[in-house]
Amino acid sequence: MNNELFIGIDLGGTDIKGGLVDNAGKIVFETKIPTEAKKGPEHIFDRMSQLIQTLRDGAEAIVAGIGMGVPGQVDVDAGVLVEAPNLPGVDRFPVMDFLRERIDIPVILDNDANVAALGEHAFGAGQGVQHMLMITLGTGVGGGLILNGQVFRGAMGGAGEFGHMVVEADGELCGCGRQGCVEAYVGTAGLLRAVEQRLSNGEASSLAGISSEKRRPKDLGDAAEAGDTVAREVFSTAGHLLGIAMGNVANLLNLERIVIGGGVAAAGERILGPARVGFAETALKVSLKSLEIVPAQLGNAAGLVGAARLAMPVL
Amino acid sequence: MNNELFIGIDLGGTDIKGGLVDNAGKIVFETKIPTEAKKGPEHIFDRMSQLIQTLRDGAEAIVAGIGMGVPGQVDVDAGVLVEAPNLPGVDRFPVMDFLRERIDIPVILDNDANVAALGEHAFGAGQGVQHMLMITLGTGVGGGLILNGQVFRGAMGGAGEFGHMVVEADGELCGCGRQGCVEAYVGTAGLLRAVEQRLSNGEASSLAGISSEKRRPKDLGDAAEAGDTVAREVFSTAGHLLGIAMGNVANLLNLERIVIGGGVAAAGERILGPARVGFAETALKVSLKSLEIVPAQLGNAAGLVGAARLAMPVL
Repeated sequence: MNNELFIGIDLGGTDIKGGLVDNAGKIVFETKIPTEAKKGPEHIFDRMSQLIQTLRDGAEAIVAGIGMGVPGQVDVDAGVLVEAPNLPGVDRFPVMDFLRERIDIPVILDNDANVAALGEHAFGAGQGVQHMLMITLGTGVGGGLILNGQVFRGAMGGAGEFGHMVVEADGELCGCGRQGCVEAYVGTAGLLRAVEQRLSNGEASSLAGISSEKRRPKDLGDAAEAGDTVAREVFSTAGHLLGIAMGNVANLLNLERIVIGGGVAAAGERILGPARVGFAETALKVSLKSLEIVPAQLGNAAGLVGAARLAMPVL
Repeated sequence: MNNELFIGIDLGGTDIKGGLVDNAGKIVFETKIPTEAKKGPEHIFDRMSQLIQTLRDGAEAIVAGIGMGVPGQVDVDAGVLVEAPNLPGVDRFPVMDFLRERIDIPVILDNDANVAALGEHAFGAGQGVQHMLMITLGTGVGGGLILNGQVFRGAMGGAGEFGHMVVEADGELCGCGRQGCVEAYVGTAGLLRAVEQRLSNGEASSLAGISSEKRRPKDLGDAAEAGDTVAREVFSTAGHLLGIAMGNVANLLNLERIVIGGGVAAAGERILGPARVGFAETALKVSLKSLEIVPAQLGNAAGLVGAARLAMPVL
């Protein structure tokens, strides 16, 4: 049924992206509107329903389902957005019921990290495996799990939380208030802090030429590329701890694949190289043997494609 | 069908235990023979087949199935014991095929940690939940996972490996050769090393009266009970790191229950108290809310009962 289409929605703190996706995971049309998160959840989802209607009206085929990734904790069965740190006022917002009053196709929603994992599993770097972890490296470190070929959500939809795995008890402070989480080293803030610490220790680096307020992960990438020792060592240390955390997951779940995406992953082998070393040191023989670490394939499209996949019948 | 019985076999490095178990998880008869591990796998499994025959002959009901827990990595579908550190000469030993030539009921086998988790899930402290981790604290630290109500084995049967989760990068050396694994702190050797380190630092303790070669975890428990500060702090530090590791798992899998068994768990709240604190510090809100930490209920019987459960039809 190639003339069926699915609507995928990727709700972020800044934009609502919407797209028409075919059942091979191809985006045939996409658009976005500002989230206007400060105006509250009713405003957001009311405008989203209009976006959905526009997509549907413009589709040159039947829209057979609508799926959505949202930046927070989801009760998938009830279709409720439980909480979302970047969407003020959201507290158990009944997304599915709210949209049902406005659109006559049911909307399925899930956490955005799960949706990205689903997208990569169905149409990207995770194709063909039963057990995988998708890691998203950005401001934060996100995770989504596919076990037995399906999104694994756990008891209350909270599963897949990789970023706050503690790999260094009493280690660096994380944005979440804990110490030693992998995000405290590999997240944007952690990388920039590590640079700052090295500069404070008097290490020489081209990064000293950028004021600390203006320094971005992109600058680290550029400096590392140009041979800057501080930038290279910061990536190396962070990557090594990322690898240890990945090894922990592989030992616990005997995965087949770890897919790595997100902005910081753009640093590529500068961070993935040391991660592979940390992983190989940590993974037990059986975990090591069964697993490959690969870059994500879908980029930013994973959110839209995965959301649309949520609405597709299980193959 | 209460007049059906199941044979459970618990193969250890020292003994082969065998039992007749009813479908309510009650052991109606049990016995054991020495493993004689040094004589190699053919010898072990040949004698095991005789044990099974004896159990079957003595059963006052039909034996409807045979399940077995083994101390190593298992290819469950093929019925092969891939490797077993405490059983010399085992290298992809075809247990199922070997026994099929001797007994006309198929034998199902799995790793002993998975089997214990299954036993506790079906008939002990894990009843009624979909997602749980069973941790066994002893010489080593073992783990078995139940996800979606079933044993989760991962890609090659290696899942559930909790003991070698790294919680302290570059931390204490573990028996596995890695650094900072939870077992390096909570396993028997780790606990004893921590005592030794404190005594070497000149800390006063009743444990100094026992030579280091003769010191056992039981002595730590007794000393802690009698108010010894060193013993109490060793349990407290180990328990805290155990709690962090449990929090990591809870965040990744959003579990409903963690069941703790094994010999060291006999230290009870001396180790579980600090573990609860470390857990609460590490677990995210949703992980914390959904989960309870409970002691195992079946004790040593978990191995036999879980093995028998392997052979029971899925309810």
